[in-house]
Amino acid sequence: MVPFGTGTGLEGGVNAVQGGVCFDLSRMDAIAELSLEDFSVTVEPGVTRKALNKHLRGTGLWFPVDPGADASLCGMAATGASGTNAVRYGTMRPNVLNLRVVLPDGRLLHTAGPGRQPRKRAAGYDLTSLFVGSEGTLGFLTQATLRLHPLPEATAATIASFPSVGAAVACTVQVLQAAVPVARIEFLDEVMADACCRFSGMGLPVAATLLLELHGSRHSLAEQQQQTQEIVQQNGGSSLAWAEGQEEREQLWSMRHNAWYAALALRPGCQGYSTDVCVPISRLPDVVVETKKDLQASGLTAPMVGHVGDGNFHCIIIFNSQDPEEVQRVHAFTQRLGRRALAAGGTCTGEHGVGLGKRALLQEELGQEGLDTLRSIKAALDPHNLMNPGKVL
Amino acid sequence: MVPFGTGTGLEGGVNAVQGGVCFDLSRMDAIAELSLEDFSVTVEPGVTRKALNKHLRGTGLWFPVDPGADASLCGMAATGASGTNAVRYGTMRPNVLNLRVVLPDGRLLHTAGPGRQPRKRAAGYDLTSLFVGSEGTLGFLTQATLRLHPLPEATAATIASFPSVGAAVACTVQVLQAAVPVARIEFLDEVMADACCRFSGMGLPVAATLLLELHGSRHSLAEQQQQTQEIVQQNGGSSLAWAEGQEEREQLWSMRHNAWYAALALRPGCQGYSTDVCVPISRLPDVVVETKKDLQASGLTAPMVGHVGDGNFHCIIIFNSQDPEEVQRVHAFTQRLGRRALAAGGTCTGEHGVGLGKRALLQEELGQEGLDTLRSIKAALDPHNLMNPGKVL
Repeated sequence: MVPFGTGTGLEGGVNAVQGGVCFDLSRMDAIAELSLEDFSVTVEPGVTRKALNKHLRGTGLWFPVDPGADASLCGMAATGASGTNAVRYGTMRPNVLNLRVVLPDGRLLHTAGPGRQPRKRAAGYDLTSLFVGSEGTLGFLTQATLRLHPLPEATAATIASFPSVGAAVACTVQVLQAAVPVARIEFLDEVMADACCRFSGMGLPVAATLLLELHGSRHSLAEQQQQTQEIVQQNGGSSLAWAEGQEEREQLWSMRHNAWYAALALRPGCQGYSTDVCVPISRLPDVVVETKKDLQASGLTAPMVGHVGDGNFHCIIIFNSQDPEEVQRVHAFTQRLGRRALAAGGTCTGEHGVGLGKRALLQEELGQEGLDTLRSIKAALDPHNLMNPGKVL
Repeated sequence: MVPFGTGTGLEGGVNAVQGGVCFDLSRMDAIAELSLEDFSVTVEPGVTRKALNKHLRGTGLWFPVDPGADASLCGMAATGASGTNAVRYGTMRPNVLNLRVVLPDGRLLHTAGPGRQPRKRAAGYDLTSLFVGSEGTLGFLTQATLRLHPLPEATAATIASFPSVGAAVACTVQVLQAAVPVARIEFLDEVMADACCRFSGMGLPVAATLLLELHGSRHSLAEQQQQTQEIVQQNGGSSLAWAEGQEEREQLWSMRHNAWYAALALRPGCQGYSTDVCVPISRLPDVVVETKKDLQASGLTAPMVGHVGDGNFHCIIIFNSQDPEEVQRVHAFTQRLGRRALAAGGTCTGEHGVGLGKRALLQEELGQEGLDTLRSIKAALDPHNLMNPGKVL
């Protein structure tokens, strides 16, 4: 049994590799129980993140987790999604208060108990966090109660070019250390910056680039901007122009959100595959530089983008899927990238999940004891391996 | 096998109710692998939160989770502890990056893989969150990698009296809705305010009271103070005097931290028991008012304190443990309080854990499917029920 939301996952999580029945949950699309006072809302699995935020317009609240696609919120819970806002607002896990789950044997489980939504709990094992990121292997998520956040009074976004990857990452660390409550801090390597410029028509240097967004009151925003500006300058970054109006900001972020298409435009007719690793931020410059060397040596086209405040980055590999030799090079590169992240104390997936493609890396990441523990849990909750077989484990 | 840290838990988690071997981990007290750039540190189970923060002095970082006692950090992970700062910095769960666990059969598990500490992961079920709050029933926590936070540049604390519980809670909701990044927002009922005054010698009205603390840059602090002041006034709160110096602030918070002793002083020679429920914040005024009526009808002395920004509150019941009839009344009251929280969509424990005393309530909270799921996990990871038997489940 394979649960299906929007089919926008990137690791083949909804592929029916062993056949079976795929359950399309997209028409269960009710938004129930919005509580403004409790900053919470309950949604069915067909509700996407954009549909929820449209529904929330005028309430002063929003749901900030934003993977690239307009994914369903239960699908985002199932894969433990995150996105550009995670550095400030967290990933899905801390933003899910309760899940209604249809277990493999048909019983109905509420991970925090039926109808409950306290902001914190210490009552037994955290079933909510267990089902977030379970990728459909433990049950169907048929309802999610989510934590909402107040909309910031003011927002400003900017873009800066840096002399090197190291300088861009050092800037990021210093922004975090200065306790600037940065809402988004996104990295583009010079290949990605160039591709985005060409695609969007914006004029940007071909250089390591950071896109930043700040949220706050009008007053505090001015101070955050000043702090950020100083840190950017100390790291040799370009001087900043701030986009404060909605249209201007949307222009900037549409450039970032179109990174996928900008990358595809580098080799028309080719396919894209987005890798996803996450490392401790101190290791990020080395890992990025080594990865760029590896890409050159491999002869692959793969611009890099990253949620750099979390140490999470992607290579968007543009390859000819009809060329078996190139496909093989892509596969070998992604395995090396995963192992490089593991060697740096990181993970083979920061936000896309394990799905089909990362099962071997998962074993290396967790070790035998870790994988055995995952398998014990899977066997306990789905003894007949009915749910999404062949994925994760 | 019962793991023992500092013995400061409040629900009997370390009591050897079935005999067995108690493992005192307090002499494993190394602080290893402090990484300032990654905002992370790895500690052994004998390290307490105060010892860690002392070690961090001068680094510009701190660990904010603060249950009342100077508990061990692995014990805090085991119980899913939180405290006054959780409204801003989260509970233990989002602040633990990795755990080294000795499983019941002696194998060594690293919940995020050996030596790993990425800020986010989507690699398989979240074993870290599963072991946080497992209360020693799944294994021994022998090392924890924790997330650190930058120290705020400036801090200001204040205290305000309100005409009613409802006004104090309405003020709290509005502070959160206004996106004031409040670091602490603590409630004392009029009985607790009175007891604290008498104990500390501070002069305060006998009224529903909020203690607030704000963290930020000097500039943003002034704005937060102004916003807070306006919201307090709109809700009929007293005018605010801000404690900004460390000594002044410590005086204010020592009053709060001595709440337990202030409560005990109300009936010298008696015992204290702290209840712990958490409800959606919209339901908090009703639940508090009903609970106060219940206390009066029960003839019990039990001042109330609460981490009101999370909807979490405690009644510190002061009772004569030599009087079986009073003990019975205490028990009946705590059961009613737990059920009242459950009826309001909350939990029977926001931060103290289930331990011995809340097992019956846990079943009511989760329902049979939830409890069965917990039991399946326990049976899978500890098939011979060796770890802390008789607790939680």
